[in-house]
Amino acid sequence: MKVFVAQLNPTIGDLPGNRDKIIEAIHQGRLQKAEVVLFSELVLTGYPPEDLLLLPHFMDEVEKELHEIAKNTVGIIAIVGTPRRNPDQKEKFLFNSAAVLKNGALVGYYDKMLLPTYDVFDEHRYFEPGVGAKIWNLNGVRVAITICEDIWQHSDLVNWTIYRSDPIADLETMRADLILNLSASPYSLDKADRRVEVASKAAETLMTPLILCNQVGSNDSLIFDGYSAFCDANGDLIASAKGFKEDFLLIDTDTETKPMEVRRDHIADLYSALVLGLQDYFQKQGFQKACLGLSGGIDSAVVACLAVEALGKEHVLGVLMPSRYSSPESRTDALELAQNLGIETEEISIEQPFDSYLKILSEQFYGHPPDVTEENIQARIRGMLLMAISNKKGYLVLSTGNKSELGMGYSTLYGDLCGGLAVISDVTKTWVYALASYINREKTIIPLSTIQKPPSAELRPNQKDSDTLPDYAIIDTVLVDYLEEHLSVAEIAARNGYSEELVADIIGRIHRAEYKRRQAPPGLRVSEKAFTVGRRFPIVQKFIR
Amino acid sequence: MKVFVAQLNPTIGDLPGNRDKIIEAIHQGRLQKAEVVLFSELVLTGYPPEDLLLLPHFMDEVEKELHEIAKNTVGIIAIVGTPRRNPDQKEKFLFNSAAVLKNGALVGYYDKMLLPTYDVFDEHRYFEPGVGAKIWNLNGVRVAITICEDIWQHSDLVNWTIYRSDPIADLETMRADLILNLSASPYSLDKADRRVEVASKAAETLMTPLILCNQVGSNDSLIFDGYSAFCDANGDLIASAKGFKEDFLLIDTDTETKPMEVRRDHIADLYSALVLGLQDYFQKQGFQKACLGLSGGIDSAVVACLAVEALGKEHVLGVLMPSRYSSPESRTDALELAQNLGIETEEISIEQPFDSYLKILSEQFYGHPPDVTEENIQARIRGMLLMAISNKKGYLVLSTGNKSELGMGYSTLYGDLCGGLAVISDVTKTWVYALASYINREKTIIPLSTIQKPPSAELRPNQKDSDTLPDYAIIDTVLVDYLEEHLSVAEIAARNGYSEELVADIIGRIHRAEYKRRQAPPGLRVSEKAFTVGRRFPIVQKFIR
Repeated sequence: MKVFVAQLNPTIGDLPGNRDKIIEAIHQGRLQKAEVVLFSELVLTGYPPEDLLLLPHFMDEVEKELHEIAKNTVGIIAIVGTPRRNPDQKEKFLFNSAAVLKNGALVGYYDKMLLPTYDVFDEHRYFEPGVGAKIWNLNGVRVAITICEDIWQHSDLVNWTIYRSDPIADLETMRADLILNLSASPYSLDKADRRVEVASKAAETLMTPLILCNQVGSNDSLIFDGYSAFCDANGDLIASAKGFKEDFLLIDTDTETKPMEVRRDHIADLYSALVLGLQDYFQKQGFQKACLGLSGGIDSAVVACLAVEALGKEHVLGVLMPSRYSSPESRTDALELAQNLGIETEEISIEQPFDSYLKILSEQFYGHPPDVTEENIQARIRGMLLMAISNKKGYLVLSTGNKSELGMGYSTLYGDLCGGLAVISDVTKTWVYALASYINREKTIIPLSTIQKPPSAELRPNQKDSDTLPDYAIIDTVLVDYLEEHLSVAEIAARNGYSEELVADIIGRIHRAEYKRRQAPPGLRVSEKAFTVGRRFPIVQKFIR
Repeated sequence: MKVFVAQLNPTIGDLPGNRDKIIEAIHQGRLQKAEVVLFSELVLTGYPPEDLLLLPHFMDEVEKELHEIAKNTVGIIAIVGTPRRNPDQKEKFLFNSAAVLKNGALVGYYDKMLLPTYDVFDEHRYFEPGVGAKIWNLNGVRVAITICEDIWQHSDLVNWTIYRSDPIADLETMRADLILNLSASPYSLDKADRRVEVASKAAETLMTPLILCNQVGSNDSLIFDGYSAFCDANGDLIASAKGFKEDFLLIDTDTETKPMEVRRDHIADLYSALVLGLQDYFQKQGFQKACLGLSGGIDSAVVACLAVEALGKEHVLGVLMPSRYSSPESRTDALELAQNLGIETEEISIEQPFDSYLKILSEQFYGHPPDVTEENIQARIRGMLLMAISNKKGYLVLSTGNKSELGMGYSTLYGDLCGGLAVISDVTKTWVYALASYINREKTIIPLSTIQKPPSAELRPNQKDSDTLPDYAIIDTVLVDYLEEHLSVAEIAARNGYSEELVADIIGRIHRAEYKRRQAPPGLRVSEKAFTVGRRFPIVQKFIR
């Protein structure tokens, strides 16, 4: 059977736009003589549509557009991810479905059985689970349709959940000739490998080829990496669509298969993911121009490079905002970076407003020694200047804080936490350095002194991050153990040979900074557990251990 | 049977503190010769514990503390809301349970059957549904235990869900003598009435008395109103605990019953809810002092009154921050309010920093006419000053924006949206006026000119909200129809006799402001659909109708 895999980048809620993309892909499949065109999960609405699903008039339009798509399937079969109304209206009003369209008509629906409701997924909020696996006769081929999570239980790779049923096991007695899977499986560091592992295991168990179509593109915080895949009946990976781009893959399941070698470069993927996340956040909203503060430090340098890659150098503005505490080297580094990138810069000293704040607050502050207040004022003046440029000239402000800082609360609310998008808020300092090396792999774009100097916020004389923070290597280890593995203070200390005081201090900082993160800009998720999406902790709570 | 209803205010994650409260209540019940002490849902952890539930070491401590509590039940029965591990570990690892403790031992668990997963509720993220209703023999009395949502399906008052089972219907053949319900049912405007309606309907159907113990207190955005209730076998309300306070209720189900009259004052309840929300946000974090900007307008006036009621006048600081556009009347109104409340004020002109921003930005802004940028700068200077006072002196900043503004995006990110808590962000302008009248019911606290003058942000000469916004009465109607009822533009226009253009404009503003709300401070939820909790819409999306 010839299957045309359409790895598309839908926009959430853009039903007419997504419909047109789908119809165009069906047309492409027909030109390529495919029998089936396979789409990703909820491709018609984009994933995740969130509470749009609760609007009855949204579902009316979904049905209307699906009907339009069906009309365009003359002589071909299309399998399209879409929400559909649950005709029983018990317990939830919708299913997360695959519509099978053929020859201009709707043949039927397969409803997703396993509904992830953990981390960034809330599918039980909207959907009723489907009732069972079945075999579709598509042009005489026995095809089993599955949706994303349906094939994951079989590999025991699901988090926080052990599903009661395993649709792959259910299919064992059903003698399918081909398994199709519609996915919207978001990127995280080694997710593409695990996804292939899952597809491979299912194919191997059923001794049946499996074709997986994954969503590509970024929606708010979630980045989808694509990498749609074809595994043969041995479970070998035979073909893969591109990562981080729309792509099409024509697969003929009747030809001889040859396993493909995949050697994934995790850091290249991380870079591509962030570029895509930035790009889609801008393009899908119709924005073009970004501005960011250039401090001469590594975080803003990496974000500037990502922004140039995503938006083009002519659309990125670097703003230098020196104070009495800025070192001349930082200014040089920032200008050198800007020159290497070919981006425009502006320079605005924050001394005048800083002075005027200190003056008008002198009465209130009388008798109080300088403290973090004065540091925050500087950071907030910078935030304010960026927002003013944004308001006046239509730039979107990029926030440049990394995950280690966000975890420790080492950032100023309404200061460096200003911005429309937090580009690297899910990238630890460790990985920021790795990204900087990757960016400099061919020639030096980020000045070496930016990379080599000890991190500093430059908000008081001779300040270093290490004055008030533990080593980033330690912070980053604790972050992973605590956020992703849910280990306790005692367990983290024991595993890594740290003192319990040190680990307790870091975890205390994580919880005390919850209120800041609640007001942080949306960030691009690239790890298994991001702070700003998929992690839900109360602000006011007492369990910190 | 004598049942002692312990309507407690637990703190999230404060396992030792909550344990002590529970043990003390059991002791009180014993003194009152009760046979059973009934607690609220998840009283041991506080509701909602959110992702704390995913930490294995959190569950270890829960089990340990429950064991401690059990030891304190000699000669008495305690029914305590607690999460418990699902021994089958399928599909979710926990149940939302009621532990039945008697004579120092754990008798068994009842597991909640209906798990709300909509709006502010995410119970499917953590819990597996319980498998069925059962009858407990408690001192010879046949008792059915239910948890919150379990009794709601029977009244058809559940949103976005029609459960497959109705535990009240299941109980019909089981001949219970008494129904107990452990609740954590959050406040919204007429929720207490609906909760009594639900309890009453269940009691009436089963012809059995029902005792409901509800949580009281506020946790982040969710306010729990208490109002625990006893309905007799006719479904008549016989007794009610206090609203918005911890309370105990001794009920003897064997004495003759006399229906009680309830006349609820919705505006008094709203006022109490906001005071409790503010109070708990402060007290549970160990904060005492609040500051807020006093503009002379009605929103900041109402928030100041709520803060004084919640924290005491000596703990509230009003900050006047006039600019060239502030009217002398606004200043007079603000000072008069402060005097009426007896709170301290400070006055800091924003002219100096405003000038210095305009000066240092003059190059960047050359050729651009003044626009919203200059207005935002003023609002942001004010936010910055409040944050500086907060940083230096330990005040928590209260954000004073109302729901109508938040809906329309009529607020400045990092400006008036600064703050630790948004006190009235779920109160529409219409209800802000009602609160002001309520506050002034005995004597004038909020100056009448504050109430009577047309709303203005005073960010440019002679500015009025009505220059750029539709009438608040219209906005507020559309907000309810769109947020709570999910009506479309066409339906809202038809229902209210508005033009479709007008409604589409308002709904467009709602969606365009999503990015601002994502970075707004946490707000107290008092309606059926708050912006900042329980509503999940993508920022980047195209379905706006």
